[in-house]
Amino acid sequence: MQTTIKNIAIIGSGLVGSLLAIFLKKRGHQVTVFDRRQDVRTVEFSGRSINLAMSNRGWHALEKVGIEKEIRKLALPLDKRAMHVNDKPIYYQKYGKEGEAIYSISRGILNRRMIDLAEEAGAIFKFEEKVWDIDLPEAKIYTGETEKGEWQEYNFDHVFGADGAFSRVRHKMQRQSRFDYSQEFIDVGYKELTIPANPDGSHKLDNASFHIWPRGEFMLIAMPNLNGSFTCTLFLPFEGEISFENIKTEKQAEDFFTTWFPDIKDSISNLKRDFFNHPTSAMVTIKCYPWTYWDKVALIGDAAHAIVPFYGQGMNAGFEDISVLDDLMDAHGDNWEKIFEEYQTLRKPNGDAIAELSYRNFIEMSNKTASPEFLLRKKIEKHFAEKYPDKWIPLYSRVTFSDKPYAEALAIGDTQRGIMDEVMQQKNIAQEWNSPEIEKMILELLKTS
Amino acid sequence: MQTTIKNIAIIGSGLVGSLLAIFLKKRGHQVTVFDRRQDVRTVEFSGRSINLAMSNRGWHALEKVGIEKEIRKLALPLDKRAMHVNDKPIYYQKYGKEGEAIYSISRGILNRRMIDLAEEAGAIFKFEEKVWDIDLPEAKIYTGETEKGEWQEYNFDHVFGADGAFSRVRHKMQRQSRFDYSQEFIDVGYKELTIPANPDGSHKLDNASFHIWPRGEFMLIAMPNLNGSFTCTLFLPFEGEISFENIKTEKQAEDFFTTWFPDIKDSISNLKRDFFNHPTSAMVTIKCYPWTYWDKVALIGDAAHAIVPFYGQGMNAGFEDISVLDDLMDAHGDNWEKIFEEYQTLRKPNGDAIAELSYRNFIEMSNKTASPEFLLRKKIEKHFAEKYPDKWIPLYSRVTFSDKPYAEALAIGDTQRGIMDEVMQQKNIAQEWNSPEIEKMILELLKTS
Repeated sequence: MQTTIKNIAIIGSGLVGSLLAIFLKKRGHQVTVFDRRQDVRTVEFSGRSINLAMSNRGWHALEKVGIEKEIRKLALPLDKRAMHVNDKPIYYQKYGKEGEAIYSISRGILNRRMIDLAEEAGAIFKFEEKVWDIDLPEAKIYTGETEKGEWQEYNFDHVFGADGAFSRVRHKMQRQSRFDYSQEFIDVGYKELTIPANPDGSHKLDNASFHIWPRGEFMLIAMPNLNGSFTCTLFLPFEGEISFENIKTEKQAEDFFTTWFPDIKDSISNLKRDFFNHPTSAMVTIKCYPWTYWDKVALIGDAAHAIVPFYGQGMNAGFEDISVLDDLMDAHGDNWEKIFEEYQTLRKPNGDAIAELSYRNFIEMSNKTASPEFLLRKKIEKHFAEKYPDKWIPLYSRVTFSDKPYAEALAIGDTQRGIMDEVMQQKNIAQEWNSPEIEKMILELLKTS
Repeated sequence: MQTTIKNIAIIGSGLVGSLLAIFLKKRGHQVTVFDRRQDVRTVEFSGRSINLAMSNRGWHALEKVGIEKEIRKLALPLDKRAMHVNDKPIYYQKYGKEGEAIYSISRGILNRRMIDLAEEAGAIFKFEEKVWDIDLPEAKIYTGETEKGEWQEYNFDHVFGADGAFSRVRHKMQRQSRFDYSQEFIDVGYKELTIPANPDGSHKLDNASFHIWPRGEFMLIAMPNLNGSFTCTLFLPFEGEISFENIKTEKQAEDFFTTWFPDIKDSISNLKRDFFNHPTSAMVTIKCYPWTYWDKVALIGDAAHAIVPFYGQGMNAGFEDISVLDDLMDAHGDNWEKIFEEYQTLRKPNGDAIAELSYRNFIEMSNKTASPEFLLRKKIEKHFAEKYPDKWIPLYSRVTFSDKPYAEALAIGDTQRGIMDEVMQQKNIAQEWNSPEIEKMILELLKTS
């Protein structure tokens, strides 16, 4: 298949932008990456990040472009959840089968490495250069110090908007007629906190677990870093009885942690300082369509489908966009119109599906992960899945440890949920959960579903 | 209640902007209305308008501010639908009870009159002055020739965004964190056409009817004007087998009308010219929240809740926003924070409800209005409603001929639909529709719902 070298702009030097740059350079294109912010390699981290969970789809993309091994060095495998419920021992829940794990990586560390790799591959990075306008049919971009000041014009063959949830490229596309768009915030915010390493550099908690302190309407999570520390994230409603709004003083912050997280409170460093110095961030689901403009402009990653972080799939979904684009470039060579058209047709339903799954997990993680009914449900599913691995792949595994489309995972997950709803209504289910009758029932229900 | 005179800007001189100006002037405020377009009184109409259907909520607002009689002179009452199905006589469907009607008004004529009335009341209009930016917390607006050129700054106490579906004011609010927003286009476009008056000035069709030619996926409607003409609107999918995309030549346009609208084709003037000269317009549902910024800025009308036109409620909903604001100004005097907060809390659920109802009517009008099952359903409802007017107000009447909240109409309408679904499943319903058994069944179902 013939490939003509193209002059391509990528707006945004985040994870998706820098990985896309590596892919395009490998194909021989000229690649310029613009970012309005400073080079992330030259700045201190912002204190507003949630650690990433790289899973199958993410690794698959990295493998395709030959940098998987390089990135593995930055990651710690987590093969289970560790649930911290007050006054009870820690409860461990395996994520998948033997050998299956998600991988904790610091966003900042990963981003820095990816930019290095993209530069090594020959991509040009222009940091602190703000894109203010895009001529969509001409693939021209306009940059400058300020929106109202002098602008510089650049001509490209193709432009990728990898500029995140608040994408400027999408913002321009949104002004077209017949462009569907939605942004929906959840009423919960988040704040980054830190558990430092022990003096000997070891982790203060099990470093092969994703730690969760579920508390109903709010929760704390912790993910390990290579240096022995944990990045913690507190998810808490913005308003209401127990909320960010109602924690205004150091005393209130201290009381809040003493009441709800007594086992971990003293391990969090600079709790009171960080609580008030780190920003409280909002979370949003963004959907739009179309994702492309002719063969000129395409949105990718969060710019096309920002999701709430509760399935750990934001980065993975963005990296999978790139894998799909790469396959289409193999298939269609120079026919960028076809590449872009199939890209958006293939990916849109999956973007919508992972948005829905992530939103549902937000509800599930805060409200249900600690409930006995939920744990029993998971136990039955797990028991059945282990016995009939070809008949029952749990939803979480389908999303996290496979590369089957998200939309398929959502649909099959809904069928499974329907079956489990019926199972949970059986008398004495708490006692009979692993009985032959229940097993037979699930097998029957699977046949008719 | 004390009222301090305030300096108020209204962005947008459309129907809602100009009516709001009249209301605010009556309270003694200083009012400046900005519009980026020319004065509508000085331009020819655009050929992209659908005639308006003023109903109860619209009249109620006009009455409150004392201009109802003035506007009645511009309107023609329509007390029924006239359904044109090929090869069948016209089928008439009364909208409501004796004396209930919707009123056909030309958007352009109404808008011109409202601006005259607002000017007479003392509002200042600044046409062709483009607002580019708004300082939300300071209620400052910035205008200028171009977005990048010199801007003029104005200070106000309050700013209303009455600038329609593609509101610049909302656009600014949208850039805040935690601002929910969606725009969703339907796949159907519309085009304005005209049936001129007879040579003696009389109407070519019954002028007390809303004329519909339902054709499944598409339809034509016609609404009478005072001058004997009808404004027609063709609703047709943008793409697909029978679509705007597939009518590219005059021959194709002619064939399309000959096939589908043979009874009216020759009455439409300049069919081929207008079909290609008039724009094909898109239709969108826009939702957002919040609608206000402190006591400084409020969105109103389409800027807050643009809806598809299939319930004839767009203008009525916007005018009702003004009625509600006016009541709140009576109740809370100088407390604009409370006025704005209650305004958005009261109106948001109703904006969502009329959006949903309008979207459903889009499906209903094109697909179902001609089906025998639908007509039977309506006949049963009507029969029952006439016998038990206190127990059954049809949804259409609740929306169109009452001023009870839209959200209430939607909820009660859903209950009624559930009842009618059961009724329609009865054996021999086509014969038994007015039997005592069916009547008893509905009465029973109403009790338990």
